[in-house]
Amino acid sequence: MKALVYHGPGQKSLDERPKPVLQAPTDAIVRITRTTICGTDLHILKGDVSSCAPGRILGHEGVGIVEEAGSAVGRFRPGDHVLISCITSCGRCDYCRRGMYSHCSDGGWILGNMIDGTQAEFVRIPHADNSLHAIPEGADEEALVMLSDILPTGYECGVLNGRIAPGSNVAIVGAGPIGLATLLTAQFYAPARIIMIDLDDNRLAVARRFGATDTFNSGRDAVVERVHELTEGRGVDAAIEAVGVPATFELCQQLVGPGGVIANVGVHGTKVDLHLEELWSRNITITTRLVDTVTTPMLLKTVEAERLQPAQLVTHRFPLAGILDAYDTFSRAAETNALKVVIEA
Amino acid sequence: MKALVYHGPGQKSLDERPKPVLQAPTDAIVRITRTTICGTDLHILKGDVSSCAPGRILGHEGVGIVEEAGSAVGRFRPGDHVLISCITSCGRCDYCRRGMYSHCSDGGWILGNMIDGTQAEFVRIPHADNSLHAIPEGADEEALVMLSDILPTGYECGVLNGRIAPGSNVAIVGAGPIGLATLLTAQFYAPARIIMIDLDDNRLAVARRFGATDTFNSGRDAVVERVHELTEGRGVDAAIEAVGVPATFELCQQLVGPGGVIANVGVHGTKVDLHLEELWSRNITITTRLVDTVTTPMLLKTVEAERLQPAQLVTHRFPLAGILDAYDTFSRAAETNALKVVIEA
Amino acid sequence: MKALVYHGPGQKSLDERPKPVLQAPTDAIVRITRTTICGTDLHILKGDVSSCAPGRILGHEGVGIVEEAGSAVGRFRPGDHVLISCITSCGRCDYCRRGMYSHCSDGGWILGNMIDGTQAEFVRIPHADNSLHAIPEGADEEALVMLSDILPTGYECGVLNGRIAPGSNVAIVGAGPIGLATLLTAQFYAPARIIMIDLDDNRLAVARRFGATDTFNSGRDAVVERVHELTEGRGVDAAIEAVGVPATFELCQQLVGPGGVIANVGVHGTKVDLHLEELWSRNITITTRLVDTVTTPMLLKTVEAERLQPAQLVTHRFPLAGILDAYDTFSRAAETNALKVVIEA
Amino acid sequence: MKALVYHGPGQKSLDERPKPVLQAPTDAIVRITRTTICGTDLHILKGDVSSCAPGRILGHEGVGIVEEAGSAVGRFRPGDHVLISCITSCGRCDYCRRGMYSHCSDGGWILGNMIDGTQAEFVRIPHADNSLHAIPEGADEEALVMLSDILPTGYECGVLNGRIAPGSNVAIVGAGPIGLATLLTAQFYAPARIIMIDLDDNRLAVARRFGATDTFNSGRDAVVERVHELTEGRGVDAAIEAVGVPATFELCQQLVGPGGVIANVGVHGTKVDLHLEELWSRNITITTRLVDTVTTPMLLKTVEAERLQPAQLVTHRFPLAGILDAYDTFSRAAETNALKVVIEA
Repeated sequence: MKALVYHGPGQKSLDERPKPVLQAPTDAIVRITRTTICGTDLHILKGDVSSCAPGRILGHEGVGIVEEAGSAVGRFRPGDHVLISCITSCGRCDYCRRGMYSHCSDGGWILGNMIDGTQAEFVRIPHADNSLHAIPEGADEEALVMLSDILPTGYECGVLNGRIAPGSNVAIVGAGPIGLATLLTAQFYAPARIIMIDLDDNRLAVARRFGATDTFNSGRDAVVERVHELTEGRGVDAAIEAVGVPATFELCQQLVGPGGVIANVGVHGTKVDLHLEELWSRNITITTRLVDTVTTPMLLKTVEAERLQPAQLVTHRFPLAGILDAYDTFSRAAETNALKVVIEA
Repeated sequence: MKALVYHGPGQKSLDERPKPVLQAPTDAIVRITRTTICGTDLHILKGDVSSCAPGRILGHEGVGIVEEAGSAVGRFRPGDHVLISCITSCGRCDYCRRGMYSHCSDGGWILGNMIDGTQAEFVRIPHADNSLHAIPEGADEEALVMLSDILPTGYECGVLNGRIAPGSNVAIVGAGPIGLATLLTAQFYAPARIIMIDLDDNRLAVARRFGATDTFNSGRDAVVERVHELTEGRGVDAAIEAVGVPATFELCQQLVGPGGVIANVGVHGTKVDLHLEELWSRNITITTRLVDTVTTPMLLKTVEAERLQPAQLVTHRFPLAGILDAYDTFSRAAETNALKVVIEA
Repeated sequence: MKALVYHGPGQKSLDERPKPVLQAPTDAIVRITRTTICGTDLHILKGDVSSCAPGRILGHEGVGIVEEAGSAVGRFRPGDHVLISCITSCGRCDYCRRGMYSHCSDGGWILGNMIDGTQAEFVRIPHADNSLHAIPEGADEEALVMLSDILPTGYECGVLNGRIAPGSNVAIVGAGPIGLATLLTAQFYAPARIIMIDLDDNRLAVARRFGATDTFNSGRDAVVERVHELTEGRGVDAAIEAVGVPATFELCQQLVGPGGVIANVGVHGTKVDLHLEELWSRNITITTRLVDTVTTPMLLKTVEAERLQPAQLVTHRFPLAGILDAYDTFSRAAETNALKVVIEA
Repeated sequence: MKALVYHGPGQKSLDERPKPVLQAPTDAIVRITRTTICGTDLHILKGDVSSCAPGRILGHEGVGIVEEAGSAVGRFRPGDHVLISCITSCGRCDYCRRGMYSHCSDGGWILGNMIDGTQAEFVRIPHADNSLHAIPEGADEEALVMLSDILPTGYECGVLNGRIAPGSNVAIVGAGPIGLATLLTAQFYAPARIIMIDLDDNRLAVARRFGATDTFNSGRDAVVERVHELTEGRGVDAAIEAVGVPATFELCQQLVGPGGVIANVGVHGTKVDLHLEELWSRNITITTRLVDTVTTPMLLKTVEAERLQPAQLVTHRFPLAGILDAYDTFSRAAETNALKVVIEA
């Protein structure tokens, strides 16, 4: 089968690889119909993710059709349409029982990282009963592929951890795909203001179209002052960090008001300063989270009920044969205005 | 009346001052029967608290008897025995309605800081209906003075923010009075282990007597390794910072396990490093809080029910005339083994 | 001044009464600009509310302008535009501190019940600092009068107690003003389905216009079967009782699924059957609540942010001189299609 | 093997039955070392549980040693010591993902009910990875058999649903084994008072020994008056129904205070009266629950940490050959003072 293979920092190619086979009675083999590329895939290609060895098929997002199911798989059979979760979970270890699938002792984020992933014609999914979700035949697969990772990430790490509530004032720092996914799901809770902050005017325009009440370009605007003006001098109830660098985490500390939350979504490569000399008495909460995808069934219901339109995030489409072009388009997002690129396998 | 007055960094004296008078219909004047000294008073004397001007009567803890009550005070009348909260709250501003009395727009921590405090024969208490608590005549006042500040601080900032639950593994870094108050109230929730960490063997011995299941001297023991051994390699569910320096906050980051909480109780004077490069994916929560004293009524019930013995924290007693000796004893705690010193006014 | 006075069962008139005066330093006198009539006023007129004595001025909803403020009132002064809460709260008793203003030991629902109310030119508001809310000059007062009672009631007793969440299936039994207020505020949380059930087709049509996803006429439709069909045979996550008779509470028990909530909003005059022989093992929750109005500040923010349009509930307007006509229109709602009638004083 | 078999209402015998075999790759066969009898077994023998057909081996509690494990069982292998949960859970259906194992679509309470149970030398456990818990070799098995059902039931249905908190006033109606299990686990949360109510003085004496602060004999004492005296006229924060008849549920309604919870633990065979005409405005919560056993891992930790002593509940011991005597002793508890009887297989 065709598969996008990582060959070490800066190197990838579309190779011919053997079709995966069942290795455990809880495995399933899924034929991919749609997949996509994540910012994390670009991190791997930079060589930043040491757990991902050369030779690995990349990709942890996708929808498809069950091709084969192990003898202990109870919820799926060949022919079922499924959504693949980016997180593999056994459903029985201590972490899974606490809803922390991201730390599953026999799973977590392994697809396209420690085992072969979804940017291929077929993929093997361990613990299939817990790691796949049934989707209706005829559903908009392009929309649903957004539920593998990006929407649960924005929702769990940003919106839920940020405790967004009716009437809240929310700031989202970073209007990339993950910040926009946070913006879309934040609207489940009728916050008073959702303020998006980015350096890219195009992305801020998208944010306004997606429901941001206010947008600021942090390269140009006096963001801290403006946000305090909008919030009667108090700061926001939730400051959501969706970039992953020290400067944006610093900004969140300046935006959050007493009693508020800084919800970190970004992937950080270095330590940051935490201003406890000011924050110790301000009753704030800081959260971190690798997405657990525990909310995926709920998100599927909101899509079905048309409370959420994930397809808005898709800007480009490619066949699997053109996946190298897809990578190129996605990695030059500032020029191409790419948000999410869908690959049809 | 006699009162302990701050005269600028390093300077204090027991002075004769006029008895306070009602300034608003919501004020009460309380005759102090017992007060105590807080670590924060020592901070003021070092000149670290810029909001506290020379000439201020210090002290924000105490019990006493209502001497006079303003026309709008509904819950108290002269002769009532009362506990004074270290936090003044109006009960009606947006923060008070959210239970954040520490950020009350007409209160907060003002006693012995922005207005005259309790280390005196009399004190004026603004918003008396919300800032005093009735106590039974004949109650152990020495025990109850521990409920002005130290026990709600340990409980709210450490135990509640740390989400301590039956079966939890808890580490408390710092076995001073505030760490010990956290230890006492942590036992409300039947945690599996309460591990106390300090540099002072005497304090660790006290901690064991107060219910710690394990103690480590961080000057001698390989704390991180030992705690991970005790927790099957996972780290603790709650790491409580009760010191207020970068090294102890750093230690908490090394002790906390995935899904755990770092609850900051310490007063910090400088920024700290936050290792987001490791913690971003570990689903942790960090909290800060200035005590709100919203739990004082509940704590009073636990004392009455003998679920909590606050008198354990009292090591020394002085008359008001000897308050300078009390300060001396309290400030040389490593030598005197002082925890809390009670001043009888 | 003119005031609508209750003279015993079935009797009311628009009388001349003396203007109220301050009785406590925490009181304010408010000049009413808009008020309305509540279903509870009709209950009083039937003689069902024994706490309300003849001679009482009715009404517990309204907006107006502060005319006079007692010496202990800190948040308001003459000329301020205010919203009157139907619940009077001292902000300092044990119940108020727990957010249960409805059970305030010196307040609760007393306006237009145990003390004179708002259907008059002026009203005395006890504990004004806690029982009034500032509103911007120039705000839509007609909309805001819906925030005195009906919207916090639907939101607190129905939506919050019903734990409505994104993706939930919700049934609201009763499409009168309070059921519709529940419907409007339920949409803060992006539920998958909001099913409205009533006997009046006109009200069901209104419900669809206000955002119901499904409506059933319980006089005609096989409601239980239909709701189970819509929810894959499971029953709803939240069944909200907004009528107050045994039959509708019974229906809620048939609609709720395992793990779900029955949130009672209706005022009941008689006991009901609870089918514990079936429900004991179904992991359900039943809640009751007299509105506390603790969410009024939040609701004001959602109105300001245009996430909530309360004016939709207003169908008729009358001058104070025509209040008897207003009562007539409101009490014949089935014929007049009245939801809320606004009286301009 | 030997097994206690139900042969229809009133009929049981100790029979020879074939040893169970694996039926699915997720099954395990466990050799029973200790089991016990539950009040529910007596219900089955009365013919009250229609899902249990004649020919069924009874019992849903026990500890033992894994004899054989299916190919998809990942957490256990032959020789492992295990605790059997009374609830079978697949860990992957919608209910299991929400922590409602009791409603597992391929499990729930099936052991000794819809499939053969634990009162035998061997038992087949479906979904073994989720339905068994590892216990340390050498642990007190007699104590741990109390964690199959009775302790999680008291804790989940009574203590957690009752929202017991430090300083709470709690009433437990019924001092049988399940009421006593509730009493033991309620003490995790340092409530101010735990009031036990029963008709049997012996059981009330046991309750005092187990930590009840107050006990009343409802056949003799004016319970409602006395409880209101103990709670300053307010009623309790949590009233826990641990009997299962209308009279005790009625009593709970009279005991609960505003803002309180009635947590139903009892198994009810008939409907009850719910006094909504009084309770509609009292902000109360009523909960029902079939135990989910989601807290078993946590309870195991509290036993290991010696915060909980389950062995206190064991009053009698029998060999498997004497199980008919064990049934006799357990069913005449009023005379034999039996709480839990342990059967050694």
